[in-house]
Amino acid sequence: MLTSFTKKRIKPYFIQTDVFKLPRGTRDFTPEEMQRRRYTENSMMTTFQKFGYKEIQTPIFENLELFTAKSGATIIDELYSFKDKGDRELALRPELTAPVMRFYVDKLQMEPKPLKLFYFGNCFRYDRPQKGRYREFWQMGCELIGASTPEAMAELIALAYHAIKETGLKNINLRVGNLGYLNQQVEETLSSSNCYTTGSTELKNNTKSEIFRLIDKEDYEGVRNKFKESGVIDKKIIKFMDSIDANNIEDLKKFSVKPGLEQELERYNKTINLLKKFGVDNARMEMKIARGLDYYSGIVFEIDAPILGAEKQLCGGGEYKLVPLFGGKETPTAGFAIGFDRTILALESEDFTFPKETVDVCVIPLSNAVIDRSLEIASDLRNMGAMVDVDLMRRGVSKSLKYAASLHSKKAVLVGPKELKKNSVIIRDMDSGDQKLVEVNNVIYML
Amino acid sequence: MLTSFTKKRIKPYFIQTDVFKLPRGTRDFTPEEMQRRRYTENSMMTTFQKFGYKEIQTPIFENLELFTAKSGATIIDELYSFKDKGDRELALRPELTAPVMRFYVDKLQMEPKPLKLFYFGNCFRYDRPQKGRYREFWQMGCELIGASTPEAMAELIALAYHAIKETGLKNINLRVGNLGYLNQQVEETLSSSNCYTTGSTELKNNTKSEIFRLIDKEDYEGVRNKFKESGVIDKKIIKFMDSIDANNIEDLKKFSVKPGLEQELERYNKTINLLKKFGVDNARMEMKIARGLDYYSGIVFEIDAPILGAEKQLCGGGEYKLVPLFGGKETPTAGFAIGFDRTILALESEDFTFPKETVDVCVIPLSNAVIDRSLEIASDLRNMGAMVDVDLMRRGVSKSLKYAASLHSKKAVLVGPKELKKNSVIIRDMDSGDQKLVEVNNVIYML
Repeated sequence: MLTSFTKKRIKPYFIQTDVFKLPRGTRDFTPEEMQRRRYTENSMMTTFQKFGYKEIQTPIFENLELFTAKSGATIIDELYSFKDKGDRELALRPELTAPVMRFYVDKLQMEPKPLKLFYFGNCFRYDRPQKGRYREFWQMGCELIGASTPEAMAELIALAYHAIKETGLKNINLRVGNLGYLNQQVEETLSSSNCYTTGSTELKNNTKSEIFRLIDKEDYEGVRNKFKESGVIDKKIIKFMDSIDANNIEDLKKFSVKPGLEQELERYNKTINLLKKFGVDNARMEMKIARGLDYYSGIVFEIDAPILGAEKQLCGGGEYKLVPLFGGKETPTAGFAIGFDRTILALESEDFTFPKETVDVCVIPLSNAVIDRSLEIASDLRNMGAMVDVDLMRRGVSKSLKYAASLHSKKAVLVGPKELKKNSVIIRDMDSGDQKLVEVNNVIYML
Repeated sequence: MLTSFTKKRIKPYFIQTDVFKLPRGTRDFTPEEMQRRRYTENSMMTTFQKFGYKEIQTPIFENLELFTAKSGATIIDELYSFKDKGDRELALRPELTAPVMRFYVDKLQMEPKPLKLFYFGNCFRYDRPQKGRYREFWQMGCELIGASTPEAMAELIALAYHAIKETGLKNINLRVGNLGYLNQQVEETLSSSNCYTTGSTELKNNTKSEIFRLIDKEDYEGVRNKFKESGVIDKKIIKFMDSIDANNIEDLKKFSVKPGLEQELERYNKTINLLKKFGVDNARMEMKIARGLDYYSGIVFEIDAPILGAEKQLCGGGEYKLVPLFGGKETPTAGFAIGFDRTILALESEDFTFPKETVDVCVIPLSNAVIDRSLEIASDLRNMGAMVDVDLMRRGVSKSLKYAASLHSKKAVLVGPKELKKNSVIIRDMDSGDQKLVEVNNVIYML
């Protein structure tokens, strides 16, 4: 019954049909979609746990400053930010590394190292919605805190790889880069130009930042032009392009001059070699991985699913520095995030057969007189571990069977008054239509 | 390496320590807490699935109007509402029934009936944070669409009961009421007063609404006063109080006059009797359950955990009417929501022993020369299904063992160069400290 004091608030229907829509860029998930999502979630989670990673969770929103401190004020344009009633500036989280680092600095700094954390959660970006890009999307990721040995880095990269592989996705590519190297090549190339070296610090930073952005976008023509604009001569530009095309340790060493970097390249090389010990055979050295230099450093990596075409990146990660920025004691940190929605899209594109969960049996009372007993039978079956639906609609058997079929139930149990007198029911195979009389106590063995 | 163009955005630390706090009223969850939450989530979900319920998911925010249409404009004070950059009024969801009904009306109306849906998600209220009440909280709930038979209602109520029981919580109370009955008693009592019957419709609605609110708050003194204020004579008030104290079908019938209601009470009584068939033995008739009359109707129920004291309600639910309000075709709907955080609080109050997930083994390389082989051993063990951590820190064995102990690892595998020559490792029981030499291939059988 709708009481009249509710009614008065109701707007006319022609307005409602417009109002009660899903917010733009978001999604509802049907039972079938949720089964796929839960399957993928469990598959990734199990992999993380096998590597000794432990789950944590942080709130859906954070103080806005957390994200601007990490990514600069420009990120506000891409955020859902708002003031709460206490006039605090909040933002729906656009990613989870900053929240996890805040959590770490606040409460987990004293935990034994290395600390291996994983998370799964929804994130938000205010973006033009397009195929495969939503305003609410899910990330599954890991952070490794306190270790930076080659074996630590290799384990982290292998974990990302296996977490995706274990879902059943067949074709993925793993590329591992090094920002220390890339940064040195960019700086060296720029410093060969007089008009760059005599420019203001701000100009320098903007130029470098723009070059990294162009490399990240794989716009190498743009990179060349930017260098030219900055006064770099062609020969140096060609050398730069060669330096980022290098893909083995010997070539990398040729382009490296700083002694500190040589050691870093050894660690990088060792990391990639160790990946085989983790059963990862197809890792590639790739010096063109730029990943916003804002806070990444050292080893970085990306995993793609080529089947997805232009939007193929499934995972990005690497070493980064955020702990001191958030007021914590400096410690090595590295991590990655997997695009959860895109992984499912890739699985669907590869025609992966997701496991289907269905009820084991649908119990159908053949008359109102046997409803009570039908409920008891269903309850007993559940207590023995079965997944059981009961038809609750008091309808004819053909309609009930249609309902059971819509559930993809494997069996139906038809409870009739005549059969019940012999303490039996009819069990029906929903595929073949075969039926047989079975004693109530034996039903569980037939499922 | 922090690049200089990141540094310029960093505020001085003394501001940061204040800024980078958890937003008020929200929580971070540690690995230990997440284990408890995942255990509870899985336990409830499994119960829902055993009853044939299927999971769905809706976005974190909705158009604000969805919630004001359901609960009136006053709810805005309790919401996180904000405008997005397209000037749309959005709100973080305060509950999940309205979103699920919007989803149903939008996309699921043609599904076979009854439709059995469950959800698990975080909700938000702008409220003064206090013990056990947070601004971000979790609800686990079910909606049953298209069935209203006594067996349907009994199944739904039993499901809520078992979902909580299956977590391991021992002491809970289930009370089942009927809003049709309560509403009739309130109306009859009020209509005995001349000054009420001659009042405006708005006055009538406000009076009734206030009486329901007082009943919901268990403020019976307030109820008496409100009736008195409205011109109801003492005798009628006493009769009203008796009518809501009634707790068996015979007494209820004595207070009921409308013929339609008698049938409803039969259905109500049958529902409660059927609960036993689902293994629910302690259901109580309770006519004082008011649950905001805004959209509830018919059978309603609540489940409490007395151990929690004043904030003891774990679950509330019942039949409601929202589908027509949201523009859908009228169909019976009923559901419930379980306070997920409070259920965990109740389990903790009962000193429930949550299952602990730990790694099966921690692999410890005894020198840098055996790191590669240690990683392979770990990888093989994982491939055989074990949960395996490896010490990544290149530290002394006593520190590594301390780390393994902090993980609550059951075993440690010590990989030494000498033992490896015999293709063996040392396996250590972390509780007893017993160690023995084991061939590498046999380690898996020792875990």
